[in-house]
Amino acid sequence: MAPAATLAKDLAGGNYWYIRAGKGVPMNDSRHRSGGGRSARVAARTGDGARPHAPAFIRREIPPYELLSEEGLALVEANADRILADVGMEIRDDPEALKLFEAAGATVDGVTVRFDRGHVAALCSTAPRQFTQLARNPARSVEIGGNNVVFAPTYGSPFVRDIAGGRRYASLLDFQNFVKLTYATPWLHHSGGTVCEPVDVPVNKRHLDMVYSHLRYSDKAFMGSVTHPSRAADSIEMARLVFGADVVDDNCVIMGNVNVNSPLVWDATMTGALKTYAAANQAPVVVPFILGGAMGPVTTAGAVAQAHAETLVGIALGQLVRPGSPAIYGNFLSSMALRSGSPTFGTPEPALGSLVVGQLARRAGLPLRCSGAFTSSKVPDGQAMTESAVSMLSALLCGANFILHAAGWLEGGLTMGYEKFMMDLDLCGAAHTYLKGFDLSEDQFAQDGFAEIGPGKHFFSAQHTLRHYETAFYEPALSDSSSFEQWRDAGERTSDDRAAQLVGEVLEHYEAPPIDDAIDSALIEFVEQRKASMPDQWY
Amino acid sequence: MAPAATLAKDLAGGNYWYIRAGKGVPMNDSRHRSGGGRSARVAARTGDGARPHAPAFIRREIPPYELLSEEGLALVEANADRILADVGMEIRDDPEALKLFEAAGATVDGVTVRFDRGHVAALCSTAPRQFTQLARNPARSVEIGGNNVVFAPTYGSPFVRDIAGGRRYASLLDFQNFVKLTYATPWLHHSGGTVCEPVDVPVNKRHLDMVYSHLRYSDKAFMGSVTHPSRAADSIEMARLVFGADVVDDNCVIMGNVNVNSPLVWDATMTGALKTYAAANQAPVVVPFILGGAMGPVTTAGAVAQAHAETLVGIALGQLVRPGSPAIYGNFLSSMALRSGSPTFGTPEPALGSLVVGQLARRAGLPLRCSGAFTSSKVPDGQAMTESAVSMLSALLCGANFILHAAGWLEGGLTMGYEKFMMDLDLCGAAHTYLKGFDLSEDQFAQDGFAEIGPGKHFFSAQHTLRHYETAFYEPALSDSSSFEQWRDAGERTSDDRAAQLVGEVLEHYEAPPIDDAIDSALIEFVEQRKASMPDQWY
Repeated sequence: MAPAATLAKDLAGGNYWYIRAGKGVPMNDSRHRSGGGRSARVAARTGDGARPHAPAFIRREIPPYELLSEEGLALVEANADRILADVGMEIRDDPEALKLFEAAGATVDGVTVRFDRGHVAALCSTAPRQFTQLARNPARSVEIGGNNVVFAPTYGSPFVRDIAGGRRYASLLDFQNFVKLTYATPWLHHSGGTVCEPVDVPVNKRHLDMVYSHLRYSDKAFMGSVTHPSRAADSIEMARLVFGADVVDDNCVIMGNVNVNSPLVWDATMTGALKTYAAANQAPVVVPFILGGAMGPVTTAGAVAQAHAETLVGIALGQLVRPGSPAIYGNFLSSMALRSGSPTFGTPEPALGSLVVGQLARRAGLPLRCSGAFTSSKVPDGQAMTESAVSMLSALLCGANFILHAAGWLEGGLTMGYEKFMMDLDLCGAAHTYLKGFDLSEDQFAQDGFAEIGPGKHFFSAQHTLRHYETAFYEPALSDSSSFEQWRDAGERTSDDRAAQLVGEVLEHYEAPPIDDAIDSALIEFVEQRKASMPDQWY
Repeated sequence: MAPAATLAKDLAGGNYWYIRAGKGVPMNDSRHRSGGGRSARVAARTGDGARPHAPAFIRREIPPYELLSEEGLALVEANADRILADVGMEIRDDPEALKLFEAAGATVDGVTVRFDRGHVAALCSTAPRQFTQLARNPARSVEIGGNNVVFAPTYGSPFVRDIAGGRRYASLLDFQNFVKLTYATPWLHHSGGTVCEPVDVPVNKRHLDMVYSHLRYSDKAFMGSVTHPSRAADSIEMARLVFGADVVDDNCVIMGNVNVNSPLVWDATMTGALKTYAAANQAPVVVPFILGGAMGPVTTAGAVAQAHAETLVGIALGQLVRPGSPAIYGNFLSSMALRSGSPTFGTPEPALGSLVVGQLARRAGLPLRCSGAFTSSKVPDGQAMTESAVSMLSALLCGANFILHAAGWLEGGLTMGYEKFMMDLDLCGAAHTYLKGFDLSEDQFAQDGFAEIGPGKHFFSAQHTLRHYETAFYEPALSDSSSFEQWRDAGERTSDDRAAQLVGEVLEHYEAPPIDDAIDSALIEFVEQRKASMPDQWY
């Protein structure tokens, strides 16, 4: 039996369906289905079912893991306050931001802004605890905050990697491939932003192709550019062409991921992008990027206190620009290899730090972004998947609402991996079941099954089993649970090899979601006009 | 640079030290060290330090994850009670056990034993919440129960696998290799039991070689045989030769892992072994082995209720044999691939189930055994490590005290993997840091570092960094965090390849712990005499 045929058969025989244009995606969870298991599956096979069956996002039904006590959290907050009161933050090359903070009561000394204890948190209090980000397909709009969880792919890698081609600079084609793969999977709810850097497109024009690709090759919610305030404005303008200016003014339709220049600096590129998104009532994701020992202390408590201070200052700035505009409290903690000084990921210290950050975000009443499947490995090997699982589970347990870098991450974020992306999706799928929690409904206890089967007999044929087996267990796409002999005879394939095949199959069967011709033309015209208005820049 | 030299240099330059006979093992955690970081490291290099620096076990300082409410847990318990009251358990070919239960007030009908609600839990109440298992080296004795966590290697695989030799039947040499590897790592605290099946030794004599190997090639605590009551008795008798009969009568020095014949059957082999351990005041580990849909319901709530019922009956039997004897509440949940009916591991349903089992064990006041690094993969690839990390993290979060199968598991337990073993150890090491939790002590907040460095500068040279960097981060042995170029130039090695090298290096440098000559002679004599007393059996 040819390996390709085996996998294709497995996929067709299982219930791991990829999204086709406008078609259904039955999942291995009856609670997500609009119809019964078998009928929904048949509907997907035959092309019936115009609505997606996959959830637009996850409603988590398990409690977040509360690592620290109230006293411990208050101590972290007090240390964040102390940093802001004693050392302060620098806001460079942005007199408008300095004026906003000064008018709000902060102490501005040159480019340094200092805050009284509790002041920044108070400034953040106007941000909503939860908001909706509209998607082009209304059925895929996502709820950000509260008990909701949204997965998005990795962001920002200049390189891509696959088994066939190795590591190379990413191109616009790669970017579009990942938008398509993200669209096709039921396990990612959001198209992300710079899923990889299309380095074959001029730096000052990339954002136009990226935003267009998100809007044309997917209908999931997405993120725009932040690398220059004008690029942020372009991104939002393109969203207006799709959603309408009034809708955009009243609703979040685009996010922008802005990074603090840690330690304790906001630069004008990032505050410019942040202010642009906030002014348009769109959501900045405010993320300090702290590698312990470099951009912050080597000790986790210090790094978390710093991150809390830096994040709140960014969110406060957005609220001063437009009170009540949506914002996301971001988190990106890493550690360092003592031997080399290089950053490490999926290690226990950031996992613990994320659990505390989750508690801090809840106390601040802000939606939380956390990172997903981190690793420093260059390939999707055992190291990569151990680190990614540790990192992802910490994000799930800490109560994160928006998990960026949920799939694809390799090499500390420098590389977006095709096979890694598919492998991470299996864990994203598992998270759907995990976050649903432990079902205590009466039929789950199978008392009729025990009465029917009794001691010493197998449950294979029990009525209870027949009633439940189709929906009982999450079915990963890539895991091989066949016997050793079956696996050997099928070529002793490892999971990255199976993933490579799946990448090809999903891209081959990809169908773009429908888009209104007039809107598409308007987008294309906007892109062409903006590109023609400026010379190429390559730096 | 030769890859071998690279890794050896990395290991020597780092702080990942393997145990040599009687020598120290400084760890990347100042809280475990008896001396300072640098002095302990120098001591290890020069061979000073007669006591192990690695912890004999972990004292967990993070709370268990409480998934269900009190009401939910009471519902699970009520369903377990209902199974025992309505369906009951069969205890086959063991009239003594039936009599013990009848005398204790259970209803015995043929081989079926039924219990009033709450009765079995009451019978278990004499078992200790926590006990010490003595090791041959007193510094390595382990605390079982409470907030303590003990890691042991995988148990019971008939096959082994390494990159060089592929998959093959395990031999006594393999068994001894894994005892040595377990002894040498600071991250496993317990030598385990049947770490693999030495199938080159007759079935009725294997236990003698296995117990001798644990006692001779390690000085960590261990488990004895359970495959026949006489083999359990032999195991305990050998422990008496080492520890002394009086010590054995008063202390746990050996465990026996007994499995329920799920669903709802105890057979005489297992009750025989269980009674033998309990009568000798040694600890049975009582483990239902439930693959959902086969040995129990496909629904997790039903499987957990069944497991709770089965486990408590086993522990109650031990308490009836010898009230107050130690026992461990065991847990082994799995799921099933819908496509093939084969068991799957590291999936979300058993992960959730384990969290609930942890709560049930705490309510029952019993030490909990949970499974560790599970997978159905045949090789230590990405699938294997994703599943293993999910499974292990569930064990850590559920509050397990004794984690069996913490390292080596492949192929649903059929294969013990050499490289997988080393890769799992990295996660066991990470667990040491994770379970220590978030350090809130004042210096961790680095306020002097912020004052010194201020905004926009790197923390590399901060006094705070210099004071903490040596102990700030856990350092896995196998993870590669070097740059892409360094990794490429070193041969593009994956983590399983690096693990293979480490296996060879650790075995090459292995030194057996000292043992008293008279005790060693007595053990050898016992083994020879018992072997001579019976013909070989191969089934």
